[in-house]
Amino acid sequence: MEQQKRTTTVTPPKKKVFKKDINIMSQRTYHLQIDNTLRTVYVVGTQLKIALDSCAPLQSKFFSVKCSPNVKCQVLSQVQVGNSLISQQPLGKNTVLLISMEAASLHPNDSKLSVKFYGDKLENLGSALLHLTAVEISLDVDADRDGVVEKNNPNKASWKWGPNGHGAILLVNCDSETSYKKTVDYEKEEISKVSDLKDMSQMILRTSGPSELPEGYKLSLHMSQTDAERVRIFRPRSSKQAEASLKNMLFSLFQKEYPLVLSKNQLANEVPYQGGKNELVFYVEGLHFPDKDFDGLLTINLSLLESSGEAFPQTPIFTDNVMFRVAPWIMTPNTLKPLEVFVCSTRDNYEFLKGIKQLVQKSGQKLKICHEYMNRGDRWMQDELEFGYIDSPHQRFPVVLDSPRNGDLGDFPYDDLLGPDFGYVTRNAPRKEVSSLDSFGNLEVSPPVTVNGKNYPLGRIIIGVAFPTTEGGRNMTQVVQDFLWAQKVQEPIALYSDWLVVGHVDEFMSFVPAPDRKGFRLLLASPDAAYKVFKTLQHKGHGKAKMFPGKKEAISVDDILRDKQFEAENKYVQSCIDWNRDLLKKELALDDEDIIDLPVLFKVIPQDNRAVAFYPDVVNMIVLGNNLGIPKPFGPQVDGNCALETEVRSLLEPLGLNCNFIDDFTAYHKLLGEVHCGSNVRREPFTFKWWNIEL
Amino acid sequence: MEQQKRTTTVTPPKKKVFKKDINIMSQRTYHLQIDNTLRTVYVVGTQLKIALDSCAPLQSKFFSVKCSPNVKCQVLSQVQVGNSLISQQPLGKNTVLLISMEAASLHPNDSKLSVKFYGDKLENLGSALLHLTAVEISLDVDADRDGVVEKNNPNKASWKWGPNGHGAILLVNCDSETSYKKTVDYEKEEISKVSDLKDMSQMILRTSGPSELPEGYKLSLHMSQTDAERVRIFRPRSSKQAEASLKNMLFSLFQKEYPLVLSKNQLANEVPYQGGKNELVFYVEGLHFPDKDFDGLLTINLSLLESSGEAFPQTPIFTDNVMFRVAPWIMTPNTLKPLEVFVCSTRDNYEFLKGIKQLVQKSGQKLKICHEYMNRGDRWMQDELEFGYIDSPHQRFPVVLDSPRNGDLGDFPYDDLLGPDFGYVTRNAPRKEVSSLDSFGNLEVSPPVTVNGKNYPLGRIIIGVAFPTTEGGRNMTQVVQDFLWAQKVQEPIALYSDWLVVGHVDEFMSFVPAPDRKGFRLLLASPDAAYKVFKTLQHKGHGKAKMFPGKKEAISVDDILRDKQFEAENKYVQSCIDWNRDLLKKELALDDEDIIDLPVLFKVIPQDNRAVAFYPDVVNMIVLGNNLGIPKPFGPQVDGNCALETEVRSLLEPLGLNCNFIDDFTAYHKLLGEVHCGSNVRREPFTFKWWNIEL
Repeated sequence: MEQQKRTTTVTPPKKKVFKKDINIMSQRTYHLQIDNTLRTVYVVGTQLKIALDSCAPLQSKFFSVKCSPNVKCQVLSQVQVGNSLISQQPLGKNTVLLISMEAASLHPNDSKLSVKFYGDKLENLGSALLHLTAVEISLDVDADRDGVVEKNNPNKASWKWGPNGHGAILLVNCDSETSYKKTVDYEKEEISKVSDLKDMSQMILRTSGPSELPEGYKLSLHMSQTDAERVRIFRPRSSKQAEASLKNMLFSLFQKEYPLVLSKNQLANEVPYQGGKNELVFYVEGLHFPDKDFDGLLTINLSLLESSGEAFPQTPIFTDNVMFRVAPWIMTPNTLKPLEVFVCSTRDNYEFLKGIKQLVQKSGQKLKICHEYMNRGDRWMQDELEFGYIDSPHQRFPVVLDSPRNGDLGDFPYDDLLGPDFGYVTRNAPRKEVSSLDSFGNLEVSPPVTVNGKNYPLGRIIIGVAFPTTEGGRNMTQVVQDFLWAQKVQEPIALYSDWLVVGHVDEFMSFVPAPDRKGFRLLLASPDAAYKVFKTLQHKGHGKAKMFPGKKEAISVDDILRDKQFEAENKYVQSCIDWNRDLLKKELALDDEDIIDLPVLFKVIPQDNRAVAFYPDVVNMIVLGNNLGIPKPFGPQVDGNCALETEVRSLLEPLGLNCNFIDDFTAYHKLLGEVHCGSNVRREPFTFKWWNIEL
Repeated sequence: MEQQKRTTTVTPPKKKVFKKDINIMSQRTYHLQIDNTLRTVYVVGTQLKIALDSCAPLQSKFFSVKCSPNVKCQVLSQVQVGNSLISQQPLGKNTVLLISMEAASLHPNDSKLSVKFYGDKLENLGSALLHLTAVEISLDVDADRDGVVEKNNPNKASWKWGPNGHGAILLVNCDSETSYKKTVDYEKEEISKVSDLKDMSQMILRTSGPSELPEGYKLSLHMSQTDAERVRIFRPRSSKQAEASLKNMLFSLFQKEYPLVLSKNQLANEVPYQGGKNELVFYVEGLHFPDKDFDGLLTINLSLLESSGEAFPQTPIFTDNVMFRVAPWIMTPNTLKPLEVFVCSTRDNYEFLKGIKQLVQKSGQKLKICHEYMNRGDRWMQDELEFGYIDSPHQRFPVVLDSPRNGDLGDFPYDDLLGPDFGYVTRNAPRKEVSSLDSFGNLEVSPPVTVNGKNYPLGRIIIGVAFPTTEGGRNMTQVVQDFLWAQKVQEPIALYSDWLVVGHVDEFMSFVPAPDRKGFRLLLASPDAAYKVFKTLQHKGHGKAKMFPGKKEAISVDDILRDKQFEAENKYVQSCIDWNRDLLKKELALDDEDIIDLPVLFKVIPQDNRAVAFYPDVVNMIVLGNNLGIPKPFGPQVDGNCALETEVRSLLEPLGLNCNFIDDFTAYHKLLGEVHCGSNVRREPFTFKWWNIEL
């Protein structure tokens, strides 16, 4: 009641207030001294536990206690709230006095407790006096994830997943407030702009008590060495000055206004006790994403220190803890709303650009073109980077994952994308460890699924690797795999993609939105389906019709179907895709009705016995809502239409999808890539919050 | 039924048999070819899923299926077990055929399936033929933890804690089969002795089928690179030869008989298919304890590979997985039965040795004396090593954790302790990082406790560190802390011990068995209790009685009580111990009645402001069942008895404990250690099995 009143006066109505309950109340062992007056600071919500026998004069048989009205004293089980035990109580070997106080003191040592001891004839043997100063101390975070730092959440020191979970959230400050001469913000040990504070989590030290602490007491903020490698804490030098500096943004001044409190070089630091009812705001900055050796959890502690005589080190008499989890990096599947489309312009991709421009215009996104001076002829926009985002109750922004591929496009993610509220993260691997499978055409994510009752509301990451059974196979480098697995919220699936010369999963699979069933379809490349198309053509008398009409590669349906070696190669490719199909069905809980087989033929390159698409790979498409940008397959012409386009339309248009065929033949297909490989899409984040996942 | 009969004939009655249930049945996509005969191997428990439409001739409207009696074929929902679908069925766009078989084949391709296709006038348009060879394949482990490798446990691929949990267990093969020229077994890439097999977990590949697999099929055992760093797999070259070699133990022969199958240099390896009903035994060897970067879980896979034409790589058509958890290193609290007592003999510790010998004789353990040529004057047997053990359903042995302290006793754990069924583990840290807090007098473990409903049936590890708030404090080195925390089953508690010159928790705390309450008492050093004793003496007129009677250090009770600086030092020490007391009460859920305060005085050494025991520290004792070896305190003599011994007896004897006071004054106490620091005890393991903990 008292507490209710007190807190509501100082906190915005929205903020929740938790009354400390008994089970988290901590007891402090304390000793009185006979014929001596001691002074100590008491923290509201705790108990002082005093073994009377240990300080009592030797002959003592009885005792009595007197204390100020605001001191609550309790002997064993007999509770006498608020008032004293004037009458003599029998003193036993284990007689224990429990002291607590409801409210903070207005002045140092304004509360008193005295214990008198008596002999068997009730003669007075002596007494011990204690002067108490009560303070309220609570280190607070947004443990209920509503964007507001509530007071003293009983769960603030732990972290739990799920809608009924709790625990504060921290972002890796991986964007750059400055666009000019930029570095990633967490690389700087100071705050350069007020806007940077938005990327950090607030932590508030709430204190209530006399204007200052009694002599010999101080507050210390501290954390472990391990945690200190992953987090940094700033605070305004003083709330007033800070507000001032927020107004007049004099940079140099500003910097001084936000001194570093804790870092890996400073594990503990005194923080001011400001007196009265006060709130001291800290800004907590995440430095590292969850990874193989870091589960993402961090603990920060605040202690009240007491010095027992100048001669000796200070000892903590009260410690409060809060826990943060660093937000994971999250990928966005094809089913999310597209925002921006990224492609490269090269001296030879005019046709492709034209097609893309029309498509993007039609579906209403921004088109961002990376020009030749930047891409240096490297057109594989999909492979150099992956768009994702990080999210918290107080802040959210996109984060690009830069691939260790580091082609000529290597500088683009850092130089062009990193900026204010646009984050950057990468994992570096030794050159010799990096293979074609490290390109992010080999990193995709499924739409949300539920598998044997387990929900993946953010979908599942999909990568391609070698068969575990094949020696000398290529794999995505371990540091990137470790990073992806450590994010936890989109548990990855490893497919088999090493059977392809380029080796990317986007060469045989894609996801498109659908109005029915699970809200999407999985598209798979299918030589089997392709042969069906070609056999039908032959059967209907179009055996002479030519694939690649008008091109030097032109070849008739009959000739294709006549080639037994080619057929064998495609049977092998089908078996590889079938293996992935069965795995995806299991890991994503898909039925065959959730899968569409698109006609694609492959050929196996003798030198390394791996496969490439025979004609533009219609699965390797860009998905912008219901508008698809599909590699133009240049199939046999029947009644003026491409038989392959007709087949693809017949499979996809019933889902309300518009098929736009884009000519990528010379500029991409001939270089072993297609539309998807040559583009990238930044999408809207999920509305579902990652911390609500049940893990 | 069939399966029941088959398995019971080949497996010992104890072994459980699990029938593969539908939910773990895996489906394999398969394609027929019109007017062509295909052959494939089918794994019992799986399904072949055949999309009929994709292989049907173009005009097909109907189809019929014929198959051998042991082939079960199913179209969509209509099930016709065992027999064929002679009558023509309508062929739809998504007509799917599900094929399964109950029993293994006796001969390759002995089962057949043929599908006929018909036009709308039921004219025959062609047919596809499939020859099937059914095999049973199951990679098995002791997932139910009963010491026997059961068949096909449905939970074998996952791991769950608790009495209702499941999952196989692996030991780190950290003992040494050879005592001469020894190395830790896991450091050798071969099996040198048959006895070494007992330290490994059995894994059995059970197969049933024709005498050999059809052309183009093989079995491959494989694992990931990450797992391969932590495990090694051997197998007998052939069961027959192996048995032979078990008899005639010709070393060189023997070695060849257990070739390495998988290791970090060999991630995949073909394993023989032996034909008929067969069991191939593998021996799995753990290489690393759980640690910061290793949660202890390992997966091993077996795949059946199919080659689609010589030209192309083989592809897996079936994969079976098993999971192991590496057993943690477990400490043994004072409440467990002692087996062996270890001490050092030095040229100056005759008195101490005499006392220890009497005590050990009385309580009936083996006494192991480490002689000077080995200890080189380093007498701190407690500090150089910690005894623990590892446990599994099939094997258990003690394991010594060697401290990075590496004093002159440094070689003892490896040279004297490591041996057959006696394991060794250590963690090394840079010399400059190692402090006195890395000695294992600073590493203890509590008896079993329950804290807020959470059970710790193996107790909790206790270490000492610096206050997080004190800069320049000493800590236990991070690699050892990481190791201790990673074991998980005895979740550690970090106390504050840096206030002591030596800085070990055993200087102010110990545990003794008790007949009542929680089965133990926590003993704490207490200056407060000591002052109480001395004041009582003074009060009773023994103020002139001398501490350290007959020694040059002799000092009277009055003089001790007169020294205010000394009193201030002890008040400070009491506050440090109180902080630990409150923490232990919270973390072990102890009441004050579970704690006994033993009278100990400390003095603070000016140079580094840290404390040492003023007289032999009675808390620093060796506990052998109910027999305690307590440092002889040399307290004031009253009526021919040491007042401190009397006090200690009065506190401990009511618990049925025998107090034996051992003179360690010159040889240990003066060197800042006591009985516990100078001894070590190997104890019986817990009867409680670590895998039954609910984590």
